[in-house]
Amino acid sequence: MTAESAAARVPVDDGLIAILRQIVGEERVSTAAAVREQHGRDESYHAPVAPDAVVFAHSTEEVAAVVAACAERRVPIVPFGTGTSLEGGVAALSGGVCIDLSGMNQVLRVSSEDLDCTVQAGVTRKQLNEHLRDTGLFFPIDPGADASLGGMAATRASGTNAVRYGTMRENVLGLTVVLADGRVIRTGTRARKSSAGYDLTRLFVGSEGTLGIITEVTLRLHGIPEAVSAAVAAFPTIEDAVNTVILTIQSGVPVARIELLDDVQMDAVNRFSKLDYVVAPTLFFEFHGTERGVVEQAEQVEAIAKEFGASDFRWATRQEERSRLWQARHDGYYAALALRPGAKGMPTDVCVPISRLAECITETKKDIEESGVLAPIVGHVGDGNFHLVYVLDPENEEEVARAGALHERMVMRALAMGGTCTGEHGIGYGKMHFLEAEHGEGVSVMRQIKLALDPSNLMNPGKVVRV
Amino acid sequence: MTAESAAARVPVDDGLIAILRQIVGEERVSTAAAVREQHGRDESYHAPVAPDAVVFAHSTEEVAAVVAACAERRVPIVPFGTGTSLEGGVAALSGGVCIDLSGMNQVLRVSSEDLDCTVQAGVTRKQLNEHLRDTGLFFPIDPGADASLGGMAATRASGTNAVRYGTMRENVLGLTVVLADGRVIRTGTRARKSSAGYDLTRLFVGSEGTLGIITEVTLRLHGIPEAVSAAVAAFPTIEDAVNTVILTIQSGVPVARIELLDDVQMDAVNRFSKLDYVVAPTLFFEFHGTERGVVEQAEQVEAIAKEFGASDFRWATRQEERSRLWQARHDGYYAALALRPGAKGMPTDVCVPISRLAECITETKKDIEESGVLAPIVGHVGDGNFHLVYVLDPENEEEVARAGALHERMVMRALAMGGTCTGEHGIGYGKMHFLEAEHGEGVSVMRQIKLALDPSNLMNPGKVVRV
Repeated sequence: MTAESAAARVPVDDGLIAILRQIVGEERVSTAAAVREQHGRDESYHAPVAPDAVVFAHSTEEVAAVVAACAERRVPIVPFGTGTSLEGGVAALSGGVCIDLSGMNQVLRVSSEDLDCTVQAGVTRKQLNEHLRDTGLFFPIDPGADASLGGMAATRASGTNAVRYGTMRENVLGLTVVLADGRVIRTGTRARKSSAGYDLTRLFVGSEGTLGIITEVTLRLHGIPEAVSAAVAAFPTIEDAVNTVILTIQSGVPVARIELLDDVQMDAVNRFSKLDYVVAPTLFFEFHGTERGVVEQAEQVEAIAKEFGASDFRWATRQEERSRLWQARHDGYYAALALRPGAKGMPTDVCVPISRLAECITETKKDIEESGVLAPIVGHVGDGNFHLVYVLDPENEEEVARAGALHERMVMRALAMGGTCTGEHGIGYGKMHFLEAEHGEGVSVMRQIKLALDPSNLMNPGKVVRV
Repeated sequence: MTAESAAARVPVDDGLIAILRQIVGEERVSTAAAVREQHGRDESYHAPVAPDAVVFAHSTEEVAAVVAACAERRVPIVPFGTGTSLEGGVAALSGGVCIDLSGMNQVLRVSSEDLDCTVQAGVTRKQLNEHLRDTGLFFPIDPGADASLGGMAATRASGTNAVRYGTMRENVLGLTVVLADGRVIRTGTRARKSSAGYDLTRLFVGSEGTLGIITEVTLRLHGIPEAVSAAVAAFPTIEDAVNTVILTIQSGVPVARIELLDDVQMDAVNRFSKLDYVVAPTLFFEFHGTERGVVEQAEQVEAIAKEFGASDFRWATRQEERSRLWQARHDGYYAALALRPGAKGMPTDVCVPISRLAECITETKKDIEESGVLAPIVGHVGDGNFHLVYVLDPENEEEVARAGALHERMVMRALAMGGTCTGEHGIGYGKMHFLEAEHGEGVSVMRQIKLALDPSNLMNPGKVVRV
């Protein structure tokens, strides 16, 4: 907790609790320690901070009333979806009221003609895809966790198939947002494109609850492809793998996923899943299209991969074979943790122009090897985005400090290469100093916007932008 | 000119002119009437308003110095690219200084590995594509006019192939922006995706010069497709044509362009270009992909079109044949004007969810027919976006008023259908009342942002948001 945010703390008193209970009912306001603690913790390594109370909201109107009641008393508000953020986004750094949106779990509308839908913020991506099962449509964005769509919008999430389908930035058409004073706005429309005024949708996507609370999301959907094929190939070096990716994209192959696992990660996966992959930099591909199209794509990529020395190129179109090929990728995180029983994972991500990706990964790996820290690498390399998981003994302060220093060097390297300090995890309170290094004077513009929309700094305070 | 904007008017005096001349040199500041008049006029039907002076800037530093000098004296600033806006965007409603960016015409960087480039704001889209000629890359967005890329970013332009490649919203990676007080920021990075802080890039894209002046643009590029095919088909009704589009998109055919011309427009084109198309609702398609892929796409669409009664389905892959097929579409605007010699065009656009598109066009056509006004329709129907050109005698006040009333009904109909008052032309000062109808309380949030970044309302005042 920073001194700054602590200074803003206004306690939640019995009067406010009584009002909150009037708004949502007795049973949907909790001050129980276990409930509060669970709501101050995400999946990151950052210290959790419990809110003073948790409200379980069921409608936009309830959220608006809760926000208005808190705003009147200058009590901070932190939104909560599934608690799967990775940079401390849900930690109640200044205390206050957590609004849990998981009960807002209705799919409000699906239009198969328009390939769009509107959901309440608490609907998770798996729930949505289950709901869409018989429509021939799907929602492609897959950040790994079964996160809520409101939370995914708030952190501008993406994942493995952003290279084909985009991120939440491209797939959110509109939002319902409760502002800091309790007003409710609807941003965007159901039109596919618009030149009508400032792009408030994109302003709230990625704002991590610091400008308002997203309560409904209108999303683009995509047709389930007629056919899918998958391929795996090992490469002599990281450069060869990345050059394969670059040439694939330059050639216009509309690849749906391209994932890179480094040698350390492949070794982890072999051990964890009892597989026998070559322990070398390895690319995993997935292709979506027509029956003929996915075969053509796999053949095009095979030819490119072989130019760069790929061995062991395997591809498959049948579901079971594809699943077997991708097993190694899906097991990645748990396989990494299993390398060191009892250790904890400290995940992070950066994203760079793809022309610098091989160099960025190679230098980062050199750093890691020299330091003796264990840190497998997995990348959404079609976008230039890669992840590290530092596999650490959290009790070992020296080791944690060493990983922290490596992390700092990696992020600053990515920035120096024209990249960003986070491709998809967000800023939370873990990366605020990197945001300043990345955007300089731009952060002061973000601060002007924050103060214009939340002058008392009550919306998820202490995150993204220092006030 | 509104009373509100007139009230803000601060004259450009000799002292300021002298300072501007110090910044950019004697010969790049003009107060000549002809120069000023040219810079207050765009391609719309809205009344032009000349600025008091025009500065021809050659660098971001010059723009920053000019803005700072104007800001100190509370003199309004209007940016100017090619003057091809369609809602009065360049009219100097409160007088002040126009900054002409056409001299900022350098392509600063192209990366074929990253499929991106950085250009100065005055580079036009045709100039960029000419520059890219030998790289195998192209910049797809084509709003018709050879607009500057800074202007296209500022109005969130798109055009015929947005259905495949997106709009400026999706294709701008980052910007250099001079703020209202002369500070310079760089938004975004060269990374393909980022979760780092508020999306300032998307905030300035579409802000029409009201929040700052875009001086440099980093753009996504795309690989020139290996093959292109084109097709044309006539349909019994608008519904049949639109249903063909819906099913094409649902089927995941990655069509690059789908344009609809109504019967009135087809008749105009037949007359203008001496062609013999059936006078019926007609779709023009373009497909990008591999040799096999574009044939497959054309065949898929032919099958769908025939389900909806298409006659006269013609398709071609050879350049000359494709050009001949698309001739009718390219001649559209001039063909429309030629229907009535001496008349002027009053172009406008709306965008609706595609499920409502047939209904929206059909009702609009009924209105037009009942009113006796001439107004051919052309649509970027893959996005649900369509255009009207009212072909009018500008001296006939009654006719202009009738067209205005029709226009009002069309926009309100689009909004009622969940659409937007403009898919790609922007708000300028022609559609401000529609912006309020569309976004309601959201406009007050836009105003908060405007006031936070431009508290004295000096940046292109009187446009987009009323202050």
